[in-house]
Amino acid sequence: MSEKAYEWLKNHSIETAYLLSTAEVLAWDQRTYMPKKGKAHRAEQMVLLTKLLHERSTDKRIGDNLSMVEGGELVADPLCTAAVNVREWQRDYDKSTRIPRKLAVNLARATSMGEMIWERARAENDWNALAPSIADIVDLMVEKADAIGYAQEPYDALIDEFEPGETASSLERVFGGLKPALVSLLDNVRETEITPDTSVLNRLFPVDSQARFCRHIVSMVGYDLDAGRIDVSAHPFSIGIGPGDARITTRYREKFFNASVFGSLHEAGHGMYEQGLPDEHWGTPRGKYASLGIHESQSRLWENMVGRSRGFWRHAYDRALLEFPSLNDVPIDKFHAAINAVKPSLIRVEADEITYNLHIMVRFELELGLLRREIAAADLPDAWNEKMKSYLGVDVPDVGSGVMQDVHWPSGLIGYFPTYTLGNLFAAQMFHKAQDELGDLEERFAAGDFASLRKWLREKVHEPGATYSPRDMISRITGSALDPTFFIEYAKDKYGELYGFA
Amino acid sequence: MSEKAYEWLKNHSIETAYLLSTAEVLAWDQRTYMPKKGKAHRAEQMVLLTKLLHERSTDKRIGDNLSMVEGGELVADPLCTAAVNVREWQRDYDKSTRIPRKLAVNLARATSMGEMIWERARAENDWNALAPSIADIVDLMVEKADAIGYAQEPYDALIDEFEPGETASSLERVFGGLKPALVSLLDNVRETEITPDTSVLNRLFPVDSQARFCRHIVSMVGYDLDAGRIDVSAHPFSIGIGPGDARITTRYREKFFNASVFGSLHEAGHGMYEQGLPDEHWGTPRGKYASLGIHESQSRLWENMVGRSRGFWRHAYDRALLEFPSLNDVPIDKFHAAINAVKPSLIRVEADEITYNLHIMVRFELELGLLRREIAAADLPDAWNEKMKSYLGVDVPDVGSGVMQDVHWPSGLIGYFPTYTLGNLFAAQMFHKAQDELGDLEERFAAGDFASLRKWLREKVHEPGATYSPRDMISRITGSALDPTFFIEYAKDKYGELYGFA
Repeated sequence: MSEKAYEWLKNHSIETAYLLSTAEVLAWDQRTYMPKKGKAHRAEQMVLLTKLLHERSTDKRIGDNLSMVEGGELVADPLCTAAVNVREWQRDYDKSTRIPRKLAVNLARATSMGEMIWERARAENDWNALAPSIADIVDLMVEKADAIGYAQEPYDALIDEFEPGETASSLERVFGGLKPALVSLLDNVRETEITPDTSVLNRLFPVDSQARFCRHIVSMVGYDLDAGRIDVSAHPFSIGIGPGDARITTRYREKFFNASVFGSLHEAGHGMYEQGLPDEHWGTPRGKYASLGIHESQSRLWENMVGRSRGFWRHAYDRALLEFPSLNDVPIDKFHAAINAVKPSLIRVEADEITYNLHIMVRFELELGLLRREIAAADLPDAWNEKMKSYLGVDVPDVGSGVMQDVHWPSGLIGYFPTYTLGNLFAAQMFHKAQDELGDLEERFAAGDFASLRKWLREKVHEPGATYSPRDMISRITGSALDPTFFIEYAKDKYGELYGFA
Repeated sequence: MSEKAYEWLKNHSIETAYLLSTAEVLAWDQRTYMPKKGKAHRAEQMVLLTKLLHERSTDKRIGDNLSMVEGGELVADPLCTAAVNVREWQRDYDKSTRIPRKLAVNLARATSMGEMIWERARAENDWNALAPSIADIVDLMVEKADAIGYAQEPYDALIDEFEPGETASSLERVFGGLKPALVSLLDNVRETEITPDTSVLNRLFPVDSQARFCRHIVSMVGYDLDAGRIDVSAHPFSIGIGPGDARITTRYREKFFNASVFGSLHEAGHGMYEQGLPDEHWGTPRGKYASLGIHESQSRLWENMVGRSRGFWRHAYDRALLEFPSLNDVPIDKFHAAINAVKPSLIRVEADEITYNLHIMVRFELELGLLRREIAAADLPDAWNEKMKSYLGVDVPDVGSGVMQDVHWPSGLIGYFPTYTLGNLFAAQMFHKAQDELGDLEERFAAGDFASLRKWLREKVHEPGATYSPRDMISRITGSALDPTFFIEYAKDKYGELYGFA
C-alpha cells in the first residue's frame, strides 16, 4: 500500500518536472531568441503553464498519498531516497496548499506590476514611482509568511524557500562574524600603495575572439557543451532543462574582458552542478539541487577560486594572448592583479570578491528591516545610501545606481539575496577541504587539471542532490559547521599577497 | 445556455492551443539549438505534452457543449465565426474520439519505429529493413481510416486530415488533367537546343553573405523579422508559434545558391501566411490556416512565382552582385535561366517547377495503391522505379535516392504528398487572379513593390483563416473552381519563353 502510494507520488513528481522543464525551455527562448513581437503570446503561454503547475502541486491526492507513506518502513532511514523525496514533497505540498489562492493571485499581480514599474522608474531614477509597489509587496510577503508559518519571524518563512533551514537569526549570526572582517580587509587594501592597473581589461577584445575563448575555457574546466550551450542574453543566466541539457548564457562587451570571461565561468559553475546531478533521480527532490546557496557556491567557486587564481591563468594565459593580441605587453602578474582588483563600487554585479558580500549585507539588513516594519518603503533610499557609505565608503549619486539597481524586490524576491553570500561561504569552505584532500590545487590548475576538483565536487556536492540540508551537507563534506572564517582566511591570504599586507 | 457552451468551447480551444504552441517551441528548439545530449529528455517532454493534449482533445465536455450549440441560432449563418469554429471543433472531436486508444498507441509506436529504421536503412540502401514497417503502417492506417469513416475508400479519411474535402477520386480527377500536360511540357523542354548554364549557381557564395542576403530578401517581400526569425536547421521548416512569433529556418551550402535563397523564400511564404492570420481569433479554427495545401500555396507562390520571376531579380540582382562577387560576370538573363532550369532528377526537394509535380504523382499513385491493397510494401521499389522512368525518364540507381528519400511514409504521413501539388495549383490560380486585379505583377516586383501582392493575399487568403474549405476558398477568390489549367498555362508561358517553344 505505501509502496503504491510512493510510486504514485514519484510519477506525479516526474510528470510535474517535465511540465516545469517545458516552462524552462520557454523561459530560455524568451531570454535568448524569441522575436520581440512574441512577448505577449509568451506571457500567455506562461500563464497557462503556471496554472497547470499550480493545479498539479495542490492536487489533494498528494496529501492522501503522503499520509499513506509517512512514518512507514519505506522512509525509516531518513537519508534513503524515498525519505528524502517524501520530506521534500511534504514541504512543497504544505507551502503550495497553505497559500490561499487569492493571495497567490495578488502576489502574482503585484510582482508582475512591480517589475514593469521598476523597468521604467529605474531609467528615470524615480523612487517615488516604485515605492508604493514595494510597500504592497512587503505587505503581501508578510501575509504569505503568516500563511506558511514560521518559528520566530516572517522573514524565516521567506528565506526557507530558497535556503532550507536558514532563519533571520541564523543569518544574522553568520553575517555578524563576516562583516567586520570584510570591512577591516577593505581598510587593509585601502591603506596600501598598490593599485593594480585595471585599464588593461578595457582594451580591445573582439567579440568573436571572446566567444571562442569562452567556449574554450568553459570546456576546459569541464562544462559539457554537448549537454549544454552558450548563448547571449542581456542578463546572463544558467538554466537546467533536464538530463543532457543545462544551458548557460553570457554577454560580450568589446572593451571589457571580465564580463564574458568571468560571467561564463560563473554560469558554467552553475551548469556543471546541473550536469552533475544524478540523472536517474531526475524529476524528484533526490535529483535536484540542494538550495540556491549551494548552487551559488558552485558558480562562485569556478568563477573566483578557480577562474581568478594564478594557477588557472598559468595554464590559460597563452591561449588568451593568442585570442587577444591587445594583451601582448601585459605580463601574467599584472593581468592577474588586474582581474583581482579590489575597489568599492556602487553596483553589486560588478563587485570584487571582498566588497560583493558587503553589497549583500546592505540588502539583507534592509529587507529584514522592511519585514520587521522598522523601515518604510518610502525611506529605503536614505537607509541604502547610509549603509553603502558606512560599509563600502561610497556615495550613491542616484537611486538607479543605488536601491533600484536590482529587480529582486520588485519581483517579490525577498530573502533571496543572502543566498549569494552563503554561496561564497560554502564555496570557500568546500575549496579549503578539496585543497586538503587533493593537494595543491593551484598547481593542478597550472597543469590543466580541473577534472580532479570537478570530480570531487560531483561526488561530494552534485551527486547527493537535495539529500541533505545545505548546512548538513557542508558539515558532512568538510567536517565542520558553516563558518565564515574559511572565506575570511581565503580572502586574507589572496588579497594580502596581492596588496602586500599579508 | 448555448452561448455559455460556446464560451466554454472557445476557452478550451484557446487553452489547448497555448499548450500546443508550447510543444511547438520545444519542436523548434529541438531542430535548431537543442544540445545533442538533450534528445532523450526532449522526447519525454513531448510524450507528456502529447498525453495532455490527447486528454484535452477527447474531453467528454467538448461533446456535451457541442450538442448544446449545434443547430442553434449562434451558428445559423454557416460562415459566421461561431459556425466555423463549431464545425471544426466537431471535426476534430470526432476524429480524436473515434480512434481507439489502443490504435493510437500502436500507430505512435509503429511510426516512431518507422522513422528510426528509415534513418538507418536509408543510409544503407536497405529496403528490406524498412518494408515490414511500411506494411505495418499501411495496415494501421487502414484501421485508422475505418475508425474515422469515409464515403468511398480508406484513403479519403487520410487525405481529409490534411486537406478537408479532398478524396482519392477528386484528386485523381485533378491530377489526371495535370499529368499528361506536364509530361508533354517536359518533352518540349527536352526537344529544344537550349541548355541553361547552371554551373553559375555552384560558384562560391560565402555563408555570411548568404545569411545577409536571405534576411534582406525575406524582409523585402514582407516577412516580419520582428515577429519571426531565420535560423539554421538540417531540414528547413516554418513554424507558427503564435501571434507575433512565426519562425523559419534555412540551410547554407557554400557552393550552391538555390538552397538558402529559394528555401528562405519558400519558408517566408509559409511564415507570412502565419503572420497574416487574424490574431484576434488565435487559438480557434477561425484563426487557423485553412489546410496544408493552402499553406503550401503561399510558400510555392513566393518561392517560384515571385522569387523565380524576372521582375524579382530586376529589383534584387544588384544587391545579389554586391553580396556575391562570383556572379559579377553573369548577366541577369543568364542567371534567370539558370535558376529556372528544368531537369528531371531523382530527388523531389531539388526538383524544378515542372518535374516537382511528377514526383508527387508517383507518390500519390503508390500510396493509393498501398491503401487499395494493389501494391505490397515489398514491391514498392520496383513500382517506384518504373513510374520514375515513365513520367520523368530517369533511372533510379538505389532506394536511398528512390523510394526511401522521404521520411513521410515511415512517419505515417500517408495522404500528405498531394497537398504539395495542390499548393502549386492553388498558387497558380491565385497568382493569375492577383495579376488580373493588380495589373502587371512583374513590373511591380521590378519596382520593389511586393506589398500589393502580399496585401492581396492577406485579405483573400490569410484573414479568412479556416472559414472556407480550400476548394471553396479558391472558388470565392478566383471565381472559378480548382482547375490545373492555370498552372499548366503559367508553366507553358514561363518555360515556353525560357526554352523557346512558346
